[in-house]
Amino acid sequence: MPVRGDGLRFCGLIIFYAGLNAVKGVWPLPHALTSSVEQYPLNPQTFAFDYGKHSATQQGCSLLDAAFRRYFSLIFPDYTAGRWTEEFLKSSKIYCSVGFPDNLSVSAGQASLNAATVWGILRGLETFSQLVYQDDLGSYFVNETFIEDFPRFQFRGVLLDTSRHYLPVHAILKTLDAMSYSKFNVFHWHIVDDPSFPYQSRSFPELSKKGAFHPATHVYTQSDVRRVISYARMRGIRVLPEFDSPGHTGSWGKGQSDLLTPCYKGGAPSGTFEVTSVFPDSYIHLGGDEVDFSCWRSNPHVRAFMQKMGFGGDFPKLEAFYIENIVNITSANNKTSIVWQDVFDYHERVGAHQDFTVLVEVWKHGCYLCKVRQVTKAGLRVILASPWYLDLPGPTHNWARYYTVWPLAFPGSEKQKRLVIGGEVCMWGEYVDATNLFPKLWPRASAAAERLWSDEKQTSSVEKAFPRLEDFRCKLLRRGIQAGPLNVGHCKHEYQGV
Amino acid sequence: MPVRGDGLRFCGLIIFYAGLNAVKGVWPLPHALTSSVEQYPLNPQTFAFDYGKHSATQQGCSLLDAAFRRYFSLIFPDYTAGRWTEEFLKSSKIYCSVGFPDNLSVSAGQASLNAATVWGILRGLETFSQLVYQDDLGSYFVNETFIEDFPRFQFRGVLLDTSRHYLPVHAILKTLDAMSYSKFNVFHWHIVDDPSFPYQSRSFPELSKKGAFHPATHVYTQSDVRRVISYARMRGIRVLPEFDSPGHTGSWGKGQSDLLTPCYKGGAPSGTFEVTSVFPDSYIHLGGDEVDFSCWRSNPHVRAFMQKMGFGGDFPKLEAFYIENIVNITSANNKTSIVWQDVFDYHERVGAHQDFTVLVEVWKHGCYLCKVRQVTKAGLRVILASPWYLDLPGPTHNWARYYTVWPLAFPGSEKQKRLVIGGEVCMWGEYVDATNLFPKLWPRASAAAERLWSDEKQTSSVEKAFPRLEDFRCKLLRRGIQAGPLNVGHCKHEYQGV
Repeated sequence: MPVRGDGLRFCGLIIFYAGLNAVKGVWPLPHALTSSVEQYPLNPQTFAFDYGKHSATQQGCSLLDAAFRRYFSLIFPDYTAGRWTEEFLKSSKIYCSVGFPDNLSVSAGQASLNAATVWGILRGLETFSQLVYQDDLGSYFVNETFIEDFPRFQFRGVLLDTSRHYLPVHAILKTLDAMSYSKFNVFHWHIVDDPSFPYQSRSFPELSKKGAFHPATHVYTQSDVRRVISYARMRGIRVLPEFDSPGHTGSWGKGQSDLLTPCYKGGAPSGTFEVTSVFPDSYIHLGGDEVDFSCWRSNPHVRAFMQKMGFGGDFPKLEAFYIENIVNITSANNKTSIVWQDVFDYHERVGAHQDFTVLVEVWKHGCYLCKVRQVTKAGLRVILASPWYLDLPGPTHNWARYYTVWPLAFPGSEKQKRLVIGGEVCMWGEYVDATNLFPKLWPRASAAAERLWSDEKQTSSVEKAFPRLEDFRCKLLRRGIQAGPLNVGHCKHEYQGV
Repeated sequence: MPVRGDGLRFCGLIIFYAGLNAVKGVWPLPHALTSSVEQYPLNPQTFAFDYGKHSATQQGCSLLDAAFRRYFSLIFPDYTAGRWTEEFLKSSKIYCSVGFPDNLSVSAGQASLNAATVWGILRGLETFSQLVYQDDLGSYFVNETFIEDFPRFQFRGVLLDTSRHYLPVHAILKTLDAMSYSKFNVFHWHIVDDPSFPYQSRSFPELSKKGAFHPATHVYTQSDVRRVISYARMRGIRVLPEFDSPGHTGSWGKGQSDLLTPCYKGGAPSGTFEVTSVFPDSYIHLGGDEVDFSCWRSNPHVRAFMQKMGFGGDFPKLEAFYIENIVNITSANNKTSIVWQDVFDYHERVGAHQDFTVLVEVWKHGCYLCKVRQVTKAGLRVILASPWYLDLPGPTHNWARYYTVWPLAFPGSEKQKRLVIGGEVCMWGEYVDATNLFPKLWPRASAAAERLWSDEKQTSSVEKAFPRLEDFRCKLLRRGIQAGPLNVGHCKHEYQGV
């Protein structure tokens, strides 16, 4: 049975570092973990994942069946059939059960992984896979271990920008793999923006035909999108699409000549319906950042519309009106809207956010916790992105900058703190494409991932985290993720993909 | 016949940008280039490189035979036999001749590449390969073109550091490929340093056995070294080894217990002989930077030795004595020594550089041209590295920082200017390994390459260079080099290696 207790956790950690060839730890750090020096050999020829007798899901659950196969390969990367001797030939199983309190237990002769949901099983499989290690001869071991775990924040996202540079579908899928290794659960797909419109729309095919960098090679077809959504789901990751408007729509105008010129006219683009059906997630990101009012101001039709609506010359009112329209459409489609903080600021100015149930993503630099405080005070939920703009210049080793972030360190009520539902790593695409995405993202994003998953008190020390993160980075390399180096040193298995 | 003239060059450039599907240019920019809109189709089934009738080298010259094969594949990446129709089936050849003035001429029915040496032919093949382009249907073309070209500086280097992180041999070979595309001609192999000693020595096998990160997987065997040297030579690149001493030898002590403790004793390591025989290049880099005198100061044997030599407490004198000893050994082996600027500074202080024929590599930041002036005033040759430390943090797009460098912009005589023999891009390994080397190095190193190759007056504008460099970066991607993006945009063939 799993044993809970922070005191024991430290004991466990000490054992980790003392044990020769023993696993250095789990990333992100579980909330309660104890382990001993007791080693159990694992034999790939007889090892198997299986469903617990009383599990709510059983064989045939495609999500877990596939996860079992996936993690078998991840755990035994060297395994080739026939390599193992007879002496190991007794079956060892880890029983996975859905519908139970979340815990992972590995002890003599039995191992079990329990979780309330299949998603919890996915996270637990990742944890278990990180517990297994190889000795110098290549044999696999796992130590006696008891873990209870749960995420600190429910929203743990990674944003990729496929408009400033096109990212091949394969690069997105590989990012989803890496995300699952760090227990991220939201892929925020900033799919279109000013520079290009790679989304191949069913309703408006001209948008990508004219707005993509190339209408055939630099687009995401409906089949690509389905593949990404399905691949993500299998790894416990939701796909949050963003069609950022009314700013950042430069590429939309190429395929829809009346959409942008002469400036936007205050209605909602009817493509919203398509988006809500293609992307099944209950959240949708509406953008709303960095609107340039000078264009609207220059347009007599826009000004006339504002007079008619009684907005006078108050452009934030027009922006608020615009966003409210889309939010209403989105709500009518049973979706929750996420918007960049700019929208909150416009509404704040026009005093209109009373019954405005959007989630606000805080992204601006400076005192971002001041903004978090302000938004939560207004009763709205917050996703924090400001401290995690990983595309900004900096050497790989500044992972600590993304680790020493304290999302709740603002003065406010308990209720306000609960409104901070998570955070997001943003990888904007100005200077990022498939050539440099991976070493820029990993393992720096993993630093944010631990902040979003683990207990803050147990993970406040950069020094203590460093060896675990170095070890985790080597695991990423072993799994084929091109994660950049944190400092001078080496991994047993260096990146071979050059 | 090639036509020379700067006026015509601009004409050629205008044609480049006007011509639909035409090549955007050559990187680094040739000294004289004219071209017209006249397009000639190239048929891979009939195209061939051949030796000119009067060429000093003929078939059987393994270096050029191999280069012809290599560039055929680079020029026709899509070529699969049988794809081409009969109408193209008339032979087209480019005749390459050694022993003639350097030029490249492509006109109706005939193409020739002449150079004084085989190395010039290699550079010309690279230039020619960049002139060939494909239309949207995949057919290959080259425009009528006349080029005269030569390097501005004779030493155009790239430093890789294989001590702070081990770089797999394959990553080094691929770097050599990319170097040849930018016409670099020196691979400065900073092979060992404090963190690890991956060079597997014939004389001192214990050095890598104990000093490498791993004695079997993280070493360069004698066979690896031979392979690197041979691969480089085939691409017109010299391998300049650096065994940096007396500082930066932390890893040496692990395998030779009397070498470092108690500090260094003033003799020269006898491994020098091995190095001069394993690395055939006439240059050798002795290091000599960042010596920490406090260790020497602490050692009574060192202090006694200094008294005996009459150095008193002047540690730069000891350092000068040490380096002079190695330089003498190196000279006796018919090698020219290169040292970091620190050595010059020590000698300057002790007034000992009169008959000291080393090359000085200027690497410190601040007013590096002041140091270049000072060293050339002392009559010594200079390699400039300061402005090209590409491992320092910064976004990929700051290529212009490496482009707007003016190595001769110091007050000094013509003779002094001639002593600046070139420059070097340095990629130190603290935060660099095979996962991020390529997008960090390319195409930013190419910016330095153009500065070292091309005429400064013709390449002083960042704005004019940008589209050519963007195009060149796409060529690198097409050739499988993971070159990072310079700004928002796309390449017809994106990097597919994820």
